[in-house]
Amino acid sequence: MAHNISYSRRLRRTPFTSGVEAAGVKSFTVYNRMLLPTVFEDIEFDYHHLKSDVQVWDVAVERQVELIGPDASKLMQMLTPRDLSKMQDDQCYYVPIVDDHGKMLNDPVAIKHSDTRWWISIADGDLLFWVKALALGMGLNVSVFEPDVSPLAVQGPKASDLMERVFGNEVHDIRFFRQKRLKFADTTFVVSRSGYSKQGGFEIYVEGSEYGMPLWNALFEAGGDLNVRPGCPNLIERIEGGLLSYGNDMNMENTPLECGLGKFCKFAEGSEFIGKDAIALEASHGPARQIRAISIQGRAIAPPRAAWPLLKDGERVGQVTSAAWSPDFATNVAIGMVDASHWDPGTELTVETSRGPRMARVEEGFWI
Amino acid sequence: MAHNISYSRRLRRTPFTSGVEAAGVKSFTVYNRMLLPTVFEDIEFDYHHLKSDVQVWDVAVERQVELIGPDASKLMQMLTPRDLSKMQDDQCYYVPIVDDHGKMLNDPVAIKHSDTRWWISIADGDLLFWVKALALGMGLNVSVFEPDVSPLAVQGPKASDLMERVFGNEVHDIRFFRQKRLKFADTTFVVSRSGYSKQGGFEIYVEGSEYGMPLWNALFEAGGDLNVRPGCPNLIERIEGGLLSYGNDMNMENTPLECGLGKFCKFAEGSEFIGKDAIALEASHGPARQIRAISIQGRAIAPPRAAWPLLKDGERVGQVTSAAWSPDFATNVAIGMVDASHWDPGTELTVETSRGPRMARVEEGFWI
Repeated sequence: MAHNISYSRRLRRTPFTSGVEAAGVKSFTVYNRMLLPTVFEDIEFDYHHLKSDVQVWDVAVERQVELIGPDASKLMQMLTPRDLSKMQDDQCYYVPIVDDHGKMLNDPVAIKHSDTRWWISIADGDLLFWVKALALGMGLNVSVFEPDVSPLAVQGPKASDLMERVFGNEVHDIRFFRQKRLKFADTTFVVSRSGYSKQGGFEIYVEGSEYGMPLWNALFEAGGDLNVRPGCPNLIERIEGGLLSYGNDMNMENTPLECGLGKFCKFAEGSEFIGKDAIALEASHGPARQIRAISIQGRAIAPPRAAWPLLKDGERVGQVTSAAWSPDFATNVAIGMVDASHWDPGTELTVETSRGPRMARVEEGFWI
Repeated sequence: MAHNISYSRRLRRTPFTSGVEAAGVKSFTVYNRMLLPTVFEDIEFDYHHLKSDVQVWDVAVERQVELIGPDASKLMQMLTPRDLSKMQDDQCYYVPIVDDHGKMLNDPVAIKHSDTRWWISIADGDLLFWVKALALGMGLNVSVFEPDVSPLAVQGPKASDLMERVFGNEVHDIRFFRQKRLKFADTTFVVSRSGYSKQGGFEIYVEGSEYGMPLWNALFEAGGDLNVRPGCPNLIERIEGGLLSYGNDMNMENTPLECGLGKFCKFAEGSEFIGKDAIALEASHGPARQIRAISIQGRAIAPPRAAWPLLKDGERVGQVTSAAWSPDFATNVAIGMVDASHWDPGTELTVETSRGPRMARVEEGFWI
């Protein structure tokens, strides 16, 4: 059953929305109270194209939380179990953000500009409120706000070719999860080698909404012979690659260890961050459940609108939270959270989809 | 141009969504990452029905932030300029929540259960993060969390009749913006006389998702001869009544005084809350702009998807943020924010709608 989305000012347009609409977007979701395209041609067409050519994605919904001031680095470290002490000024770090119980509030990318200035490129949720209130409650000397910055992603095997045509040879110098300021028109943008796909590419942090459509147009003008198309994070491709979606695959009920993010929770004894005791306690005995790649047998399924229970002999032992048919792997690929008792690769389970039960299997790892 | 909404677990279903879908909902918006119905029959049919009969609204998107503990009342007062010192245990208060610059973060309703337990029934935004982080940063002895509570509203002139049939005569004892616990099945719910319409009615705070559909069904079974229908906050009716929508009519760029909420910012000299200095300073010289009722001339307009500039002699002097054709008042009714220089009733302005300019006028007040 399909329903229309009701528009209003509250569901914010992005600097690229007019381009997205002109390109014939078919569906949106709402993410950080902003419009995020989800389908252009159809999900399988978009998927094949992403894997073969290059796409331009309006991911302005990745809003930035800016921290600026003498206590910016101190506050940034308070937010995450990940040790930021060795992070360089051109690095981007994937950082779990947890509360005092060690539960996930967001899984953003932190971008370090300097010791006194950071951006946090957020997943869905008002992390701004968390960071602002902590600064206020702790009396820290730091300003926290949402700047006029809207990321545009260029993703796919031909991403470097397209980026070179607009930003020059310097794009090739940017290593994975590093960033560099590159010139566009009369300004410069932070450009990072990153993005929410496994096909490679870049994210351009467009500072100043007025540059949105000029950059959008420049990329399409430069990439005609590269078969550039508008795109968006693709459900099938992200599941194949095991890219988690906050709100879908985990939420405030989960810990970083449950999300398989233990490697980002290695901290020194003397470090100070919110949730330290809870994270340390869980690390000492291990998580009770964890994210797993799950295959679902049978014909193509419609993606879940709610969590689907995973059962063994009628007992609930986990849930599937994202699922889609993968044309390349000729199976339904899924992401689930499975209890320790049943998370070993090869374990056969039953998944209660919205259209009845299916056989499911815990896989060794994700598909790509 | 209509677009589909893409469903996923991240856009949470409510305890009533299955009833809403079965009733033939046509459109949704997303509010607090949850599905909020916006149209059943069509917006004008829904409007006339709301004003003549009784509707049941899935407003589970009004999530609750629960504060429980010895410092609950202290924290609650820190959040708002409104003086809570005389609030009784059965009262509901509309409370602007502001940051340290006196800017609006949310405009929820606070429900006092006791000195050590509160609910905040929120507008769109993760106020939970703000309240939790403040408690943590300030070292307060209070737990802050989102409980399993989903409001269901009963609105319209026949609301009392319908409520009496399900909850008994006690519903008549509840005064405006007061609440009482009433029995349903084997439990009790907080029921308040309140709601996001000017037609009168109640909000039932359904504690325990498993009671959602039983209550939904009980209301429809009891109200067949009252012509009860499913409904939702109605754009036309709320504009006629001057009911503001956070994210539409105001956001983090605005102050309570700009929103016409000065009466909720009368505080005693010794009181302590976040943003006090900023609020006091603005009160001393008055706001620079303020919410106004605006009529827009000419034929029926399509509601705005973004703010429409208000111009005088080509200069921007404000903006319209909500607008719709009112069948009862035979004009386009609108809510706007207008600069002090042009906010007097009767001022004629030009509004730049998405389909060209229209004549607009600042009205004395809202329509009902």
